[in-house]
Amino acid sequence: MQAKTIVKAFEAAAGADNVFSEPADLATYAYDAAVLDKVMPAIVVRPTSSEALGQVVRLCNENRLPLTVRGAGTNLSGGTIPLPGGVVVVTNGLARILEINTEDLYARVQPGVVTAKLAAAVEAQGLFYPPDPGSQAVSTLGGNVAENAGGLRGLKYGVTRDYVMGLDFFDVDGGLVKTGGRTVKCVSGYNLTGLMVASEGTLGVFNEITLKLIPPPAYRKAMMAVFSEMGQASEAVAAIIANRVVPATLEFMDNFTIRAVESYSQAGLPLDAGALMLVECDGYPGQVEEDAAKVESICKEMGATSIRVARDDAERDKVWEARRAALSALAKVKPTTVLEDATVPRSKIPAMIRALDAISKKYDLTIGTFGHAGDGNLHPTILTDRRNTQEWERVEAAIEEIFEEALALGGTLSGEHGIGTAKCRFMEKETSRATMVYSRRIKSAMDPHNILNPGKIIGGQS
Amino acid sequence: MQAKTIVKAFEAAAGADNVFSEPADLATYAYDAAVLDKVMPAIVVRPTSSEALGQVVRLCNENRLPLTVRGAGTNLSGGTIPLPGGVVVVTNGLARILEINTEDLYARVQPGVVTAKLAAAVEAQGLFYPPDPGSQAVSTLGGNVAENAGGLRGLKYGVTRDYVMGLDFFDVDGGLVKTGGRTVKCVSGYNLTGLMVASEGTLGVFNEITLKLIPPPAYRKAMMAVFSEMGQASEAVAAIIANRVVPATLEFMDNFTIRAVESYSQAGLPLDAGALMLVECDGYPGQVEEDAAKVESICKEMGATSIRVARDDAERDKVWEARRAALSALAKVKPTTVLEDATVPRSKIPAMIRALDAISKKYDLTIGTFGHAGDGNLHPTILTDRRNTQEWERVEAAIEEIFEEALALGGTLSGEHGIGTAKCRFMEKETSRATMVYSRRIKSAMDPHNILNPGKIIGGQS
Repeated sequence: MQAKTIVKAFEAAAGADNVFSEPADLATYAYDAAVLDKVMPAIVVRPTSSEALGQVVRLCNENRLPLTVRGAGTNLSGGTIPLPGGVVVVTNGLARILEINTEDLYARVQPGVVTAKLAAAVEAQGLFYPPDPGSQAVSTLGGNVAENAGGLRGLKYGVTRDYVMGLDFFDVDGGLVKTGGRTVKCVSGYNLTGLMVASEGTLGVFNEITLKLIPPPAYRKAMMAVFSEMGQASEAVAAIIANRVVPATLEFMDNFTIRAVESYSQAGLPLDAGALMLVECDGYPGQVEEDAAKVESICKEMGATSIRVARDDAERDKVWEARRAALSALAKVKPTTVLEDATVPRSKIPAMIRALDAISKKYDLTIGTFGHAGDGNLHPTILTDRRNTQEWERVEAAIEEIFEEALALGGTLSGEHGIGTAKCRFMEKETSRATMVYSRRIKSAMDPHNILNPGKIIGGQS
Repeated sequence: MQAKTIVKAFEAAAGADNVFSEPADLATYAYDAAVLDKVMPAIVVRPTSSEALGQVVRLCNENRLPLTVRGAGTNLSGGTIPLPGGVVVVTNGLARILEINTEDLYARVQPGVVTAKLAAAVEAQGLFYPPDPGSQAVSTLGGNVAENAGGLRGLKYGVTRDYVMGLDFFDVDGGLVKTGGRTVKCVSGYNLTGLMVASEGTLGVFNEITLKLIPPPAYRKAMMAVFSEMGQASEAVAAIIANRVVPATLEFMDNFTIRAVESYSQAGLPLDAGALMLVECDGYPGQVEEDAAKVESICKEMGATSIRVARDDAERDKVWEARRAALSALAKVKPTTVLEDATVPRSKIPAMIRALDAISKKYDLTIGTFGHAGDGNLHPTILTDRRNTQEWERVEAAIEEIFEEALALGGTLSGEHGIGTAKCRFMEKETSRATMVYSRRIKSAMDPHNILNPGKIIGGQS
C-alpha cells in the first residue's frame, strides 16, 4: 500500500482523530527514558477499542510495518523507541479499569491504565496492588507487564510477574490469544502469561490484563539508618536478609546520591552520611515491631551512627519521596544520566559496591549509587555529558565492566529495566548461545515478518 | 538407525547399565496415575549425568524417537504416558541437591530430586520450600515444574511456578538453554523460565532447577470445622477469603470422602458430618491467633456444629494425614478413580458444589468431592469401574459437564494436574482458536520433528 492509503486504513480502523503522521506529532514518540538516539516513526495510532487495536496489529503485519507499543514511554532500555518509518501504537486510549473483584481478589484492566491509578482504586476498595516501579505515577500497566517492572517493594512482595494472573493479547495476525485466568491455580495449556511478561512487545500486543490483588498490610513502620560508609550499609543489608527478616522495602543511597537528593528536594537528609539505608516493615503490628527492632539492632551492630524512625505517615512519606526523587535529583547534576540496574544475589552486594567504587575510579567517572538493596538490585547511575565523546567512551567501557562484574558475582544484566536495544549484545554472555537460538526461534515463529518491536531483547538477527 | 544400533548409541551415552529394552523392564513405564490406556515404550534410559542427558535428547531428535521424561509417574493427566515405540527418560539418576544457599535463599537441584526430600533438607537449614503437591513423598521437582504442581498451601504460598527462579534445560538439539537466575529480580531476555513451567516436557528437558526458598513461619495453628451440609462449608470458605483472612491451607471434604477416609485410616473423623473444613493458619503468633479466631467465628456464623483446634503437632499432623489420605481412601472404594481438578474463582465454590451435586444425580454416579477450597481448586472424584462400559459413558459425559460448569463460572479445566492427553480436546473451549494456533506454533518452532512428549497439551496436530 502507498503511504496515504496506509494512513487511510489506520484511520478506518482507529478513527481519523486517532491517527497522527505530522512530524510535530511524531517527535514526541521518537525516544524513551534510555540514553539512545531518537528514531522518528512514520505513524502514531491511538486505538480506543479492542477491535481497533486488533485491526491495527493486523494492518501492520499485512503491510510489514514495524509496530512499537508505547504506554508512558518511561522505558529505560530503549524498548519503546520505534523503528524508522514504523508505527507507534499508544495505549492511552485503552485506559479503563474493567473490574476490581473484591471477593476473588483480582482486577482486570486495559493496558493503558496508569499504575498508580490502579493502586489507588484498589486501595479505595480495601485491597492492595504491590508492584511500585519508580515511574508508577505515569507508567502504564501494559508497559509494566511488558517489562516485568520491579519497584521498591520487590523484596517482600515480588515484581509485576508475580501479579499477572491472565492476559488477552493479539497475535501478529490480529487473533486474540487468551492465557491464564481468574483463578489462583490454572495450568490450562502453555504458560503464555509467563512468556508474555518481560517480552517487551516482541511477541504480541496486550488487550486485557488480569492482576492479582492481596489484602493490605495492617501496619507499617519506616526508618532511616545513617552510616559513615557505604560498605557498612551494604553489610547491614546482607545481615538483615541472612537473619530472616523480610522488610517490605530495603533501599539505600550513597553519599553522592544523598547530596543530590537533598539539593533537589530539601528532605532533611544528613549531608555528611556516607550512606543511608531506608527500611519499611509492614504486616501484623506485633511482627512489624519485632522486625523493626531486629533491623535496628543489626544496623547498630554494623556501625550505623544514627537511626531515625518515622513518627507518623507524613514523616514516612517524606522518606520515600526523597528516595523516589533520587533519579530526578541525579539527572539534574549533569546533562546525561545513565541509569543501570545490574543485580546480584543479595549476599554479594558488598562486593558489588566495592566493584562500583573501583570502576568509578578506574574510568574517572561520577557514579551515584542507590537502589533496591534488599533485592540485590542496584542502580549505579553514571552522570556524564554525551557530547563529551572522550568521556562517553569511558562511560561505555564502565557499563561493560559493571555488567561483567554483576555476572561474575552470579548476577544479571538487568533486574527490572529490561534488555531493549541497550543490552541485547550482552545477553549471550549471561545465558548461552543455545538460549539466543531458542529465543530467536520463538520470535520467528510468533512473528514471521519481524514486525513486533523488532530488534528488542534478541537484537537485529532473528 | 536400526533398533539395535540405537540401543547401542543410548548405551554409549548413558552407560549399558542404564538402558532398558526388555518388555518386563518397559512395562513399569507404560502408564501414570491418570485413567488412560497403557502404552509400551521401546527403550527406557536412565542418564546419570548432564552430559548423558543432553546426548540422549540429541539422539532422540536425530532418530525421530518420541521422548517422554518421567520423574515418579504420579501425573494425573497422562503427561508421562509415552508414545508407542518411544523413549522414556527416567530422572532418578539425576537426583542430587546441588546447593542450598541460606544467605541468598535459593536451592539448586537436579530434576529427579524428590519434593519431600528437598523440603526436609531445606527445613534442616532453617528455611522453607512451600509447594506441597499431594504426591510430594514420591513426586520429583522436575515433574512438579513441568506440571506447575500445586498443593495444599497454594492459597497463601502459591504454586510451584512461584518458586522457580531459573532453569537450565536442553533444547531438542541438545543445546543447553539457561534462563532466569539466582536473583529475585531478573529480566534478562525472554521469561523462558515462565514458558517452561507447565510445559509438560514438550519444549525442552530440564537439567537443573533453581528454586526460591523463604523463611519458615514462626507458628502454626490447625483446626477442623464440622458442618452438616457441604453448602455451608463452601459458603464459609468464600466468607473467609472475603474477610481478608489468608490461611496457609483451607481444605474441605464432603461426607462421602470423610467416610472413605475414616474407613481407610481411622483418623477419628466425624462420620455423620455433611462436610469438614480443615484450616491451618501460620505466621507470626499474634496474627495466627487473630486469624484463627476470625475463621472460628465465620465458621460458627455459617453453621458449623463443632470446631476442634489441634492441641499439638501430633494432632495437627493427624488432621493433615487424613486429608492427604483422601485420594488413596477413595481409590479403595471402586476399581476406577477419576480425579478431576476443575477450578473456579473462590466466590464461585458454592455454585460449583451445587453443580457437582446435580451432575452426580443426573448421571447416577458416585462423586466424592474434596480439595483445596481456598484456591477454588476442587477435586471431584468419580468412583467407577471402567470395565462397565455403560457407566463409563456416563462418566465421560459427567466429566465434560464438570468442565463446562467450571468454565461457565469463570474457572479453568485444570488447576494443578495439567492438560496432558486427558484434557487437550477441551482446551480450545477455555481459551480460543488463536490460543491453540499460537501454542502449536511455539511447539513446532522449538521441536520441529515433534519428538518432545508429542500429543500432550496441544493434542495430535502441531
